[in-house]
Amino acid sequence: MQPIEDRNKISTPLVRNAISGDRRALAQLLTQIENGTPEGFAALNELYPRSGKAHLVGITGSPGSGKSSLVSQLVHHYRHLPTGEAPRRIAVVAVDPTSPFSGGAVLGDRVRMRDLAGDQGVFIRSMASRGSQGGLAQTTGQMVQVLDAVGYAMIMIETVGAGQSEVEVARLAHTTVVVDAPGMGDDIQAIKAGLLEIADILVINKADRPGVEAAEHALRSMLQIQYEAASKIQEFPCDEVPIITSETKTWIPPLMCTVAIQGKGIEKLAAAIDAHNEFLHHKGNWQNREEARLRAEMEILVRDALQARWRGSLADGEFERMIKAVASRKLSPQQAVEELISNYKVRNS
Amino acid sequence: MQPIEDRNKISTPLVRNAISGDRRALAQLLTQIENGTPEGFAALNELYPRSGKAHLVGITGSPGSGKSSLVSQLVHHYRHLPTGEAPRRIAVVAVDPTSPFSGGAVLGDRVRMRDLAGDQGVFIRSMASRGSQGGLAQTTGQMVQVLDAVGYAMIMIETVGAGQSEVEVARLAHTTVVVDAPGMGDDIQAIKAGLLEIADILVINKADRPGVEAAEHALRSMLQIQYEAASKIQEFPCDEVPIITSETKTWIPPLMCTVAIQGKGIEKLAAAIDAHNEFLHHKGNWQNREEARLRAEMEILVRDALQARWRGSLADGEFERMIKAVASRKLSPQQAVEELISNYKVRNS
Repeated sequence: MQPIEDRNKISTPLVRNAISGDRRALAQLLTQIENGTPEGFAALNELYPRSGKAHLVGITGSPGSGKSSLVSQLVHHYRHLPTGEAPRRIAVVAVDPTSPFSGGAVLGDRVRMRDLAGDQGVFIRSMASRGSQGGLAQTTGQMVQVLDAVGYAMIMIETVGAGQSEVEVARLAHTTVVVDAPGMGDDIQAIKAGLLEIADILVINKADRPGVEAAEHALRSMLQIQYEAASKIQEFPCDEVPIITSETKTWIPPLMCTVAIQGKGIEKLAAAIDAHNEFLHHKGNWQNREEARLRAEMEILVRDALQARWRGSLADGEFERMIKAVASRKLSPQQAVEELISNYKVRNS
Repeated sequence: MQPIEDRNKISTPLVRNAISGDRRALAQLLTQIENGTPEGFAALNELYPRSGKAHLVGITGSPGSGKSSLVSQLVHHYRHLPTGEAPRRIAVVAVDPTSPFSGGAVLGDRVRMRDLAGDQGVFIRSMASRGSQGGLAQTTGQMVQVLDAVGYAMIMIETVGAGQSEVEVARLAHTTVVVDAPGMGDDIQAIKAGLLEIADILVINKADRPGVEAAEHALRSMLQIQYEAASKIQEFPCDEVPIITSETKTWIPPLMCTVAIQGKGIEKLAAAIDAHNEFLHHKGNWQNREEARLRAEMEILVRDALQARWRGSLADGEFERMIKAVASRKLSPQQAVEELISNYKVRNS
């Protein structure tokens, strides 16, 4: 709850209600943002100065790695801390088409989701990975801004980690958790290698399954290659929560083992996530990460805005005529695009 | 081999050599395109009028569905037709990070690839899914143009089907084959549903595995929902090659079962791919598909070109200053982007 004088600065009732903790108002606001309405756009600008406090945690991994269960368990953990600490408010944005939060559910997951849904300190929002007005990453970024501004202290962004747009989404987070599982097949090694570059924490979920040693070995080897030169360490920590001291200079991604559906390893994983947050708040790391994050977000916004403006500047049927010229091989696609773009004059606003 | 007078119209030796069948020249040309060099760009414009003859076949599916084996077997089949027909020249562009063609290999697949590599009528090109100069879909589209122009009659584009950029790549094809396998887990149903929209042919590979009936049932149900209204058919054909007659009005995606590593079902799948090609050449379907394909390709080119030009128009440090203003919450990302774009003046070329 914000102090009254602060709340009064917000002119839009819907935004004011969302800030006061009205969940229906918040849901409506997020829908406006998803639909790209002018009201949504105005709300974003009103809310943005209040954002910047939340810890944004991306959770990404292949379908079948069990990341949705992991998210459920993490949220449950943070909401019922064994220390008796006051639980932080948590939001989940699920942009994974396979997530039970976004609708691709199996029964067991739906049940777990229901557990969380009764908790007023937890807000869950799912997004279709196709068809959102302004593109997946843009809409996610804006939803996260709103959730941050209305007071969620931790925002988990769940994405399936096997495509460019999903990697874009992962770049919007402060802390990126990459989830793997044993026995997913050798042929996803390359995907993993791509995801490793963005991982702050690595998780082997379903660690009670055969093949866990092999999976651990493979991930360690890949980490070794990536960090050897920089860190000069021989062994990567497994199931060890990093300890941040005043001496800490670099973050070495820890490798954590979990069995999410049994709640095993969740406490340590949560501690590792908190340790990364602590690391970021250490010696200017936060600002660097925040700027990298915002750069990624703004590049996406620029790309989409340029495209929208260009489309608006086209004469009726101009694009269709060009497509026909290309189809009949009069112009190459490159030549047609050069022409379409050189005709395009940006009206300065 | 092109007639001499035709070949002489091509001024660039590398391009001329690639057209004459010089595989090294072709590989060099593709590298220039991947690197976005001016030579590559010029070559594209020289070659484009020669393109438009190839049948572009996209093969997409989740990691682990065995689509790489399927591609190998299809290529082998088309190169050794039981009818004794002259085999067509085939190129494979593998943009799947999990493909043995692009490097994410298991030993068995490498062996199969080696079988194909000895065949002068087969050209295989792999692409890293990250880091190509002009974006994945753009580069793939341009490579396909070149392979088409130098005389490959069929070009297979292999992608992993779980991300926006991969779906973009699939849209570049005339015929899109979506590959599934039994027992991939319930949680990828949603991905499948997304891919179904772009499928012309559905394959259940690894059909000797348990769960094949369940997978078949699930895919049929999804097809039913999608096509019911339009086609009014009750049963989707399984393992039946569509027969194209003068009465054929719509294409109903057939569901084919294969066991790629044993070569089972490959002949029928190849026949279904050919049937779709026949359907496209029927009553203007080809032109519609070609225009849809080129529209997708040109939209990608426009997006990337707008971004590149905008970037070139920025003053030194302008973007950095904006990022800092956003990080300190003086401006929202949306406001910053509006400002960055309204300052941007396109110089007409």
